[in-house]
Amino acid sequence: LEPPYPWHHDLSAFLVQQTAFAASSEQINPSIKKDVDKVVDSVSPKDLGGKPQVAYCRCWRSATFPLCNGAHVAHNKATGDNVGPLLVKASD
Amino acid sequence: LEPPYPWHHDLSAFLVQQTAFAASSEQINPSIKKDVDKVVDSVSPKDLGGKPQVAYCRCWRSATFPLCNGAHVAHNKATGDNVGPLLVKASD
Ligand code: FES
Ligand code: FES
Repeated sequence: LEPPYPWHHDLSAFLVQQTAFAASSEQINPSIKKDVDKVVDSVSPKDLGGKPQVAYCRCWRSATFPLCNGAHVAHNKATGDNVGPLLVKASD
Repeated sequence: LEPPYPWHHDLSAFLVQQTAFAASSEQINPSIKKDVDKVVDSVSPKDLGGKPQVAYCRCWRSATFPLCNGAHVAHNKATGDNVGPLLVKASD
């Protein structure tokens, strides 16, 4: 058997498929409340504790979830992603 | 050359590594504002438009981002994930 070996073609196709799958169909929450079916949180004005604004996490990597603790910075650097928090403001 | 072929071992190790990488180090935002370094949004009371609460997206798959449009349901079903929105309430 001479190169190109038939399985090289299959392997290339498989790896392309895996890459596409990983980019679109992976779980985005690795560790937060994995015992519940859906993690839904809420924030009301009293939760802001008198602060003009509080950042809420959307990267699922904060140790203080649902609050943002800046962990999105390391996630973005490691992956090239561009996610960041939602700022909840007390007044307009 | 007889099986097991040496590249089978390398391939197995590679695929295990790829799987581990995909679970922890993939981008979680596939398509929203990829031209900006970090997507940060804000919500203030006036943005709630008189509604008692409004759901804000944390799955990065809503067509009405930063609002939740229910796209987290399909994401969770496809991947086994458990993400959901942040509910921003107008009052305590
Ligand atoms: S730590 Fe998750 S958005 Fe900041
Ligand atoms: S659509 Fe993203 S959390 Fe609902």
